[in-house]
Amino acid sequence: MNISGISNSVIRRLPRYYRFLSELKSAGISRISSAELAKKMGVTASQIRQDLNCFGGFGQQGYGYNTELLKNEIGKILGLDNAVPAILIGAGNLGRAVALHMNFDSLGFKLIGIFDRKESLIGQMVRNLPIRNVSSVDEFCRENLPKVAIFCVPKSEANAVAKNLVKCGIKAFWNFSHYDFASEYPDIIVENMHFSDSLMTLSYKLTNDEKTD
Amino acid sequence: MNISGISNSVIRRLPRYYRFLSELKSAGISRISSAELAKKMGVTASQIRQDLNCFGGFGQQGYGYNTELLKNEIGKILGLDNAVPAILIGAGNLGRAVALHMNFDSLGFKLIGIFDRKESLIGQMVRNLPIRNVSSVDEFCRENLPKVAIFCVPKSEANAVAKNLVKCGIKAFWNFSHYDFASEYPDIIVENMHFSDSLMTLSYKLTNDEKTD
Repeated sequence: MNISGISNSVIRRLPRYYRFLSELKSAGISRISSAELAKKMGVTASQIRQDLNCFGGFGQQGYGYNTELLKNEIGKILGLDNAVPAILIGAGNLGRAVALHMNFDSLGFKLIGIFDRKESLIGQMVRNLPIRNVSSVDEFCRENLPKVAIFCVPKSEANAVAKNLVKCGIKAFWNFSHYDFASEYPDIIVENMHFSDSLMTLSYKLTNDEKTD
Repeated sequence: MNISGISNSVIRRLPRYYRFLSELKSAGISRISSAELAKKMGVTASQIRQDLNCFGGFGQQGYGYNTELLKNEIGKILGLDNAVPAILIGAGNLGRAVALHMNFDSLGFKLIGIFDRKESLIGQMVRNLPIRNVSSVDEFCRENLPKVAIFCVPKSEANAVAKNLVKCGIKAFWNFSHYDFASEYPDIIVENMHFSDSLMTLSYKLTNDEKTD
């Protein structure tokens, strides 16, 4: 499904809606008004209605939202029913933590390979996957056609590794490195997880007593 | 320094400016025009001028920007010259990776304590700090007055742990958990690192072929 003209800020809120609706569903709450949902999420009811209207509403006058239905609809919009094959590049502390921490299957992805260059790591098992030598990534991509790379590579190596992965057909990066894909690869899909940017933003908020997210 | 009326999106771009200027400085580039900087960063020159004008400019007609001066100024705006005492709560895979991965000192913080509830972890050293029993966090806070908590706690425990930390005087959270502080603690400063939200956003971008960040 391709939805055009949806603002970035709405898109950014969708995962949060999805999380809250999942919790409501687990709590056995099958129906909720936009007012109640707004209160729970700390936003306004009209923002929720506006956001969800971008995708065609889902709400019913006087009934509110069916939590399971809305959760599933937002899940579809987010593409969480996919199982996009993904590889992890860089199995250091951070890479391993990401591999162990994330429930990829429920988020639209399938982790099929883990790679590093460090001899001492090769062969170690992480989440039932062996850490492979990154020198074998080309062959692995030819055979298994991963579309996404979880990119946990030191900045010094990022440029060369990224270049090779794009050559190997990787279409999207979940980027934990400080490498800036946008300027180098305008046609590649990137979602950045920039830890230091986030920590600097916290420092700014503290310094300037900003509470906004 | 308290700067009011600066839009969130400008604030979000400051760390990126800071990173690029740091790289330019390390590369020995002492001066750059907004056009060159824009090209490097994949934004427009007028956006850069607009952004920096929020903080009083720094550019000189016909000269451009002095990279070191601008880096230092943005660093001050971000409060990176601070050394705000911070504690890490939750020393599992993710918490340890964060502790080992981040260069807190250069980002305005000083990591002074690491806590977990798991007996088997207590006493282990991470980055020259022993993992302490979270039951001793109250006493530690009374003695050492940390202002920030790096929050890597499972959702199931997040509510209780957060409540206690706020009671102990923690003013800001770098939040890696799925716990939503905003609704519970409107007066607390929070910067969220929501891995699953980010991965869901990547899934959305892939599903809808969105390249924007």
